[in-house]
Amino acid sequence: MNPTEFKNQYEKWRLEVESSIEKYLPAKKTRPSVIHEAMLYSMQAGGKRIRPILLIAASDMLGQTQDPMPACVAIESLHTYSLIHDDLPCMDDSDMRRGRPTCHKKFGETMALLAGDALLTHAFFLLSDSYKSNAKIANGLVLDLSDAASSQKLIGGQVEDILNERSGTMTAENLKFIHDNKTAALITSAVTMGVRLSEKCTDETLKYASEMGLKIGLAFQVIDDILDATADSETLGKTAGLDAKHGKMTYITLYGLEGARKIAAELSQDAIALCDKIGSNNAFMKALINYMLNRIN
Amino acid sequence: MNPTEFKNQYEKWRLEVESSIEKYLPAKKTRPSVIHEAMLYSMQAGGKRIRPILLIAASDMLGQTQDPMPACVAIESLHTYSLIHDDLPCMDDSDMRRGRPTCHKKFGETMALLAGDALLTHAFFLLSDSYKSNAKIANGLVLDLSDAASSQKLIGGQVEDILNERSGTMTAENLKFIHDNKTAALITSAVTMGVRLSEKCTDETLKYASEMGLKIGLAFQVIDDILDATADSETLGKTAGLDAKHGKMTYITLYGLEGARKIAAELSQDAIALCDKIGSNNAFMKALINYMLNRIN
Repeated sequence: MNPTEFKNQYEKWRLEVESSIEKYLPAKKTRPSVIHEAMLYSMQAGGKRIRPILLIAASDMLGQTQDPMPACVAIESLHTYSLIHDDLPCMDDSDMRRGRPTCHKKFGETMALLAGDALLTHAFFLLSDSYKSNAKIANGLVLDLSDAASSQKLIGGQVEDILNERSGTMTAENLKFIHDNKTAALITSAVTMGVRLSEKCTDETLKYASEMGLKIGLAFQVIDDILDATADSETLGKTAGLDAKHGKMTYITLYGLEGARKIAAELSQDAIALCDKIGSNNAFMKALINYMLNRIN
Repeated sequence: MNPTEFKNQYEKWRLEVESSIEKYLPAKKTRPSVIHEAMLYSMQAGGKRIRPILLIAASDMLGQTQDPMPACVAIESLHTYSLIHDDLPCMDDSDMRRGRPTCHKKFGETMALLAGDALLTHAFFLLSDSYKSNAKIANGLVLDLSDAASSQKLIGGQVEDILNERSGTMTAENLKFIHDNKTAALITSAVTMGVRLSEKCTDETLKYASEMGLKIGLAFQVIDDILDATADSETLGKTAGLDAKHGKMTYITLYGLEGARKIAAELSQDAIALCDKIGSNNAFMKALINYMLNRIN
């Protein structure tokens, strides 16, 4: 797949995701309107929509038999809930995200807490409602997403990150736990949820999809660390150099810049090799993995 | 069913629910342990376990074919998440619940926020994992619970309650919206989830179960209002008279004490009449509805 084809396909799917957000969330005027405005405000903050795109790409490898859009909005709802709660005063206390006031700066802390709760809940409602005509698929999607978001994965990684920051100690083993869970678990579920949308999905497919998703997720985190250390804030779209400023242990402090680049490249190569074991319509997925490896923001 | 039989059956099921909480939540030592300690701390605070008992009673009416315990722990996890988040400083800012420090007083605000998030997530994981061998049942349970907990029901009712308290205005229509959604929606889902556990459950069963659940839920709220106005704090197990102190509109201010008692009795009679349309093994459910009507705390 040449770069222009890849770019066009990415953009086409990204726009479908953008328009699906409004379609699959309660309308802004739904009673009580303030909570629905807050939910949409945070969901429509833009971004690369990398998790939904990965989900579509994964479903496309096997030839999807179910519309991926409700699942895309579900995983983005879950991701957005985690950002809203991470930004709250008792967590990172962030005023800005993607150049706009954070949800609690715009709607107050109470509504932001509840908007996060509501998006988390909505993710599961959307999956169970949209795919109910094929309950096995619907339930598999709920299982993957609730497992990825659990106290042992997404939330567990967040907890260890906070504990390590407070204690000022971090080991390589802690760092791996945090990255596996805080970042890679949800990205892994994007891939497994995608393949579940096809009738052709087997237990073996799921196993390879899970392996592949984990490698993509870890590569994503290593690249994040590299960009924080090397990019300027303007290109990055957020303040760069924060890890070094906070003395945070990252893949860079552990393995150096070249070492980290090598790890990200190897993880990406492994992920690309797994594509062929999952499905033959995988040109976009391979291009996507390379795009994620070479991204500049 | 005589009062002793009822009491013994209630207590037997309540103890089963208590021991299932530990069984169906991650163990306290699971990494990272602090979040799992916080989740269990709030789940093990005791109480009447009215939602799980209603769920078992509903499943028993048709003759359940699936173990109700995972669903009991799921609905109790969801209820507990809502209490933890309601108690947070940006919400009701409560220091005590059921005679013990609230989750954030014990574990700090950050961990309480995340423990609430984790219990909400766990509710859906537990349903999709425990009942996956019958995906139609599993997905129906997720659908009912996520709908009841949504931005238009549980969270929506909470939002309107907060908005009305802030504005100092409340109409009878607002009060009905709040009670229907903040209290009755989750109680309704206890009943519909219960009947879904039987292979004999039909669309008609679900319709009657939903009607019945709503009536039980509204009666529950009316009785809460009556107890707040008439019981002493010691019997109630929490501070009584708070509604009058805060000038809050309730069923008492709207309809008077006798009017409210009459409404609760009528709702309970309607609910009892619906039992026969759902399933014949309903002696416990009928006794439970009467018990809830005549409760003193």
